[in-house]
Amino acid sequence: MRFAKGHGTENDFVILPDPEARIDLPPQRVAALCDRRAGVGADGVLRVVRTAALCGQGMELPELGSDVEWFMDYRNADGSLAEMCGNGVRVFARYLAEAGWVRDERFSVGTRAGAREVTLDHGGDVTVDMGSVSLHGSGNARLAGTQLSGIHIDVGNPHLACSVPGPVAEIPLEAGPELDPETFPSGGNLEVFQVVEPGMVDMRVYERGSGETRSCGTGVVAVAAAADPESRSGAWRVRVPGGECTVYREGPRAWLRGPAVIVAEGEVRL
Amino acid sequence: MRFAKGHGTENDFVILPDPEARIDLPPQRVAALCDRRAGVGADGVLRVVRTAALCGQGMELPELGSDVEWFMDYRNADGSLAEMCGNGVRVFARYLAEAGWVRDERFSVGTRAGAREVTLDHGGDVTVDMGSVSLHGSGNARLAGTQLSGIHIDVGNPHLACSVPGPVAEIPLEAGPELDPETFPSGGNLEVFQVVEPGMVDMRVYERGSGETRSCGTGVVAVAAAADPESRSGAWRVRVPGGECTVYREGPRAWLRGPAVIVAEGEVRL
Repeated sequence: MRFAKGHGTENDFVILPDPEARIDLPPQRVAALCDRRAGVGADGVLRVVRTAALCGQGMELPELGSDVEWFMDYRNADGSLAEMCGNGVRVFARYLAEAGWVRDERFSVGTRAGAREVTLDHGGDVTVDMGSVSLHGSGNARLAGTQLSGIHIDVGNPHLACSVPGPVAEIPLEAGPELDPETFPSGGNLEVFQVVEPGMVDMRVYERGSGETRSCGTGVVAVAAAADPESRSGAWRVRVPGGECTVYREGPRAWLRGPAVIVAEGEVRL
Repeated sequence: MRFAKGHGTENDFVILPDPEARIDLPPQRVAALCDRRAGVGADGVLRVVRTAALCGQGMELPELGSDVEWFMDYRNADGSLAEMCGNGVRVFARYLAEAGWVRDERFSVGTRAGAREVTLDHGGDVTVDMGSVSLHGSGNARLAGTQLSGIHIDVGNPHLACSVPGPVAEIPLEAGPELDPETFPSGGNLEVFQVVEPGMVDMRVYERGSGETRSCGTGVVAVAAAADPESRSGAWRVRVPGGECTVYREGPRAWLRGPAVIVAEGEVRL
């Protein structure tokens, strides 16, 4: 089976080119591919499949529109289905371009959260339409015995983005936060961020169900909104442990720009 | 650059086929390849190089003998040179056989610790001559506030192999042991093991400088010797978190038999 490996700000993926939708992906196979020692190793799998090839197979798809040629069938490392991933969709788009399967610089990718427009940059960056961002007022969490306050933000999934006065490296994020269950009945992701200069923040993120990660696309967008909650437009550079992204906001909508790198390609036997 | 990825009991490696010794491997490049998110990801790199091609390049090699066609240039994930690895040499041998570069079932692999004879099994297992094992009497360590006693064993590197009465899963090994510095002035690896039936043990290992790992070839050999210190011959099955090996002892010498799996092959851009 052909595969590629790639990452966006160190959120990494096994990419499976499967235009005709012939690959069977039971959860155990996804888990074997994502196993970091016995497999290839990744945070998830991106199956690259033609939307038209999926339609005849009974998979539940959202309304995508007739111009969405490619669908990102994204699975978490445990094999469960995933909707969207701001880092994954950049890597997906980069793969399509490098494979020669897409010639345009701007096109739409089908995801379980709907169609997302992506724009390829000559330097290797990809910009993704992240949809709308909603600021819901303040929220709280407990972390290592102290209280953190921040802004409750929805970017398709819930976030608590907390401004901190000092370097984010000094926050004991690895201890694991407890988000206030009144505001976050299903939990959420927690970001801590520091504005290091106008238009630039450092952040770290603790993802619900995953722990601290090197990057989180929706978290980056949430932090850019929380760093400048009064403004509804502008660009913010956001530095995560795995690299740097830029967020552009315009009204309720946000676009995420960041690197997307294909590291290796070949055949896998799993 | 061509690469493969493989593992032996979940000790995993990036394999770089380089028969003519043309690949330059500065530490940063090894680290980039072994990076589990931005690279391919592995515990180390095995460069597959003809011994004759290395001789003209000024690399310091031990006496290997004229029949040693292939040299395992093994690097740790941080790029530093490594001598030998009981799991790595199995994967190395399996790769040579699958590439068609070796036709014999038994041959010698050059390593920085000297030539090691390997034997390929039809089922995919590989047996490696691990050299001599020396039992040095008792030793101690502290782990999570309690004392552990075991046998101080040298398998080219120092080990403290400790028999425990209950399941090894219940030992708080992740807390990190402190080996008695009088016996282990340069530190060492700590194994805990339980004899589950005659000829079979379960073990876990904490490696000096790495923390708990899924497997350790010399640790497996140390445990087989510690499980039956009076005997100087026989076979022991040793179950590690990453799989199962068998150790054969004959006088002071030991052979390690275990799986070696090539998972993927392709091109890498790092």
